[in-house]
Amino acid sequence: MRFGVFMPPQAAAGAVSVPVLYWLSGLTCTEENFVIKAGAQRVAAELGIAIVTPDTSPRGLDLAGETDSYDFGTGAGFYVDATQEPWSRNYHMYSYVTQELPCLIAANFSVDPARVGIFGHSMGGHGALTLALRSPHIYKSVSAFAPISSPMRCPWGEKALTGYLGPDREAWRDYDATELIKVRGWTGPPLLIDQGSSDQFLEEQLKLELLLEACESAGVAIDLRMQEGYDHSYFFIASFVEDHLRFHARNLIKGKSALNAATSAA
Amino acid sequence: MRFGVFMPPQAAAGAVSVPVLYWLSGLTCTEENFVIKAGAQRVAAELGIAIVTPDTSPRGLDLAGETDSYDFGTGAGFYVDATQEPWSRNYHMYSYVTQELPCLIAANFSVDPARVGIFGHSMGGHGALTLALRSPHIYKSVSAFAPISSPMRCPWGEKALTGYLGPDREAWRDYDATELIKVRGWTGPPLLIDQGSSDQFLEEQLKLELLLEACESAGVAIDLRMQEGYDHSYFFIASFVEDHLRFHARNLIKGKSALNAATSAA
Repeated sequence: MRFGVFMPPQAAAGAVSVPVLYWLSGLTCTEENFVIKAGAQRVAAELGIAIVTPDTSPRGLDLAGETDSYDFGTGAGFYVDATQEPWSRNYHMYSYVTQELPCLIAANFSVDPARVGIFGHSMGGHGALTLALRSPHIYKSVSAFAPISSPMRCPWGEKALTGYLGPDREAWRDYDATELIKVRGWTGPPLLIDQGSSDQFLEEQLKLELLLEACESAGVAIDLRMQEGYDHSYFFIASFVEDHLRFHARNLIKGKSALNAATSAA
Repeated sequence: MRFGVFMPPQAAAGAVSVPVLYWLSGLTCTEENFVIKAGAQRVAAELGIAIVTPDTSPRGLDLAGETDSYDFGTGAGFYVDATQEPWSRNYHMYSYVTQELPCLIAANFSVDPARVGIFGHSMGGHGALTLALRSPHIYKSVSAFAPISSPMRCPWGEKALTGYLGPDREAWRDYDATELIKVRGWTGPPLLIDQGSSDQFLEEQLKLELLLEACESAGVAIDLRMQEGYDHSYFFIASFVEDHLRFHARNLIKGKSALNAATSAA
């Protein structure tokens, strides 16, 4: 598995542990798309935040059907642990992103495991929301660009969850942000979601209204910003990534400041 | 020929003519690299500046030897009008960028031909400097990232100028920024140059010291900023592109403001 890491200059000495943000990419992406296209490094350097960008699926397995479509298999791991053959052997993106990769990062980079945020785009927005909602003790803040809000209720999600988890829809609930909001809620900072009003996938695939309804019912704070005229592209992400970085910095660095203040007081 | 155009929202109504910046890319690039990697659109949108990104050579000619090397032929037009066969028929990047393309842009987009700036990277930094120095009536401001400062005196330039213009080095002078500074000077705003101190090409190919000496001798103002630890990549460009956009905006929009003030006073 390949992944990208941006370390801010604040960590250069190796003596300082910085907050870390995981970015989960969308369909067809590798670990490179965000690094090349989002223009996040300038602001991350200013804020002193590390960014980790995993790939979107295992690579090089040569499984039958793995590269037949852009929305399943290679480049489309959907951040789940597959239970169906032949995917169940290697398609463990949920465990990879939540466990294996953070261990690797902690062992090799000066990041603070107590200050972790997560964000993503489209399939990766689904990933960011579901991972955070299931592990709020790990992820202290979460945001998304044009996320798939309820994979149980859209063509992309139904195809992927059927393939990776089988036809029993009960097994899908743990990977559905809208369902997780209903069952588990969220007591962290408000969910920050940016969505382009001209996004071609909004109506059929993303269905943000389902997430919004679930948040309202569950009393979960959500800051959903409809961005007039923007589409589903990385130009959309690049336009608002600075807001997301500052959102996470506020929430992740605030905790540290409070801790420092407490230490100083003591 | 393909090219990219970014139009800022200020021009959306079509009634307002905005300043326009030409970006000239480096070796191996197409019209897409800057668009995808530089992260310039957010700031250009704020400032109300259009950006035009030409390709770096003709395409699809199938000339013998055209794709044999990365630094000559395809992707390496060097912004000259070739005089040597077989390049002299199509490799007219100087005329294309200074004449044909601006006519196309003026006919199809709401840009102000009186407020034009130019900037570029590496081979494109050489292009930006030489075009501006030869046509100060067109280009009111110029800046560059890690430009080839004297193609007559570096391996990349000697190969390209020999191939496109022949062995007579006298014919090369019109395409050499350092020579042009000596002969023509520059009375526009100071040349803004960013250069990474860890750029692998600095010593052998870019030779900024030659340009700096020429500027000092000719009394031309140059703002050369050595950026500690940066290399030759688009990450370097993305880190400082905002400064360049604001530099051009100051110089291109200042003229308009003065005009407005004069009109108001009248």
